[in-house]
Amino acid sequence: MNSVEWFKDQITWTQTEKKTARKAFDTAFERQCAAITEEVKNMIANASISSDIWRVHDFLSQRRRTVDKIYDYRYSVLLNVFARLLRDGWLTETDLVGLQEEKIEEIKIGANL
Amino acid sequence: MNSVEWFKDQITWTQTEKKTARKAFDTAFERQCAAITEEVKNMIANASISSDIWRVHDFLSQRRRTVDKIYDYRYSVLLNVFARLLRDGWLTETDLVGLQEEKIEEIKIGANL
Repeated sequence: MNSVEWFKDQITWTQTEKKTARKAFDTAFERQCAAITEEVKNMIANASISSDIWRVHDFLSQRRRTVDKIYDYRYSVLLNVFARLLRDGWLTETDLVGLQEEKIEEIKIGANL
Repeated sequence: MNSVEWFKDQITWTQTEKKTARKAFDTAFERQCAAITEEVKNMIANASISSDIWRVHDFLSQRRRTVDKIYDYRYSVLLNVFARLLRDGWLTETDLVGLQEEKIEEIKIGANL
C-alpha cells in the first residue's frame, strides 16, 4: 500500500463534512445535468428534420454513460470524484468549504494531475 | 397457406406504388418523430430539476424501441405496417393515394381490426 492509498484508507468524514460533501456532489450533478439539458435544447432548436430527435437520444445515451461513471458517492472514492468535478468545472473550491483542509488539498492535487 | 397469406405472397408493387409507399412511410415517420419531439420539449419545459433530463432519456429509449419495431420497410410486411400507422393516426387515406385499390382496402381492413 503506497502513501496515497494509506491516506485514503485512513480518511474519516465528520457529520459536517458529510453534509458538505453531499451538497457539493448534488450541486455538481445538477450543474452538469443543466448543461446537458441546454445542449439538448440547442440540438432540438437547430434540428433540420424531426427524426433528428434520435441524435438527441444518442447524445443523451452517451452522456448518461459518462455521468453514471463519474458520480459515485462511496466515501472511498469521493476525493477522486471531487477532483474530477473540480477539474471539469462542475465544482468550485467554494463548494468544498466545510471539508478539512487536508481533503481539499488532496482534491486540488487530483484536479491538477 | 390461408387466403390472406396467399394474397400477401402475390403482392407486386409498381414503380409508382413504390414511390407512394416510400413517401407515405417517410411522412408517417417524420410525423411520429415530430410528436415525440413535442413531448420532449414539454417534458423539458415542465422539468422541476435539471436531472429530470434522464426522464427524457428514458422516454426516448422507450419510444425508440417502439418506433424501431413499427417502421419496417420490407414489402412483405408493408401493408401491415401501413395498417398500424393508419390506425394510430400517423397516416391518412390521402397519403395512400397512388396505391392499388386492393392494397388500400387491405390496409383499411388491417387498421380496423
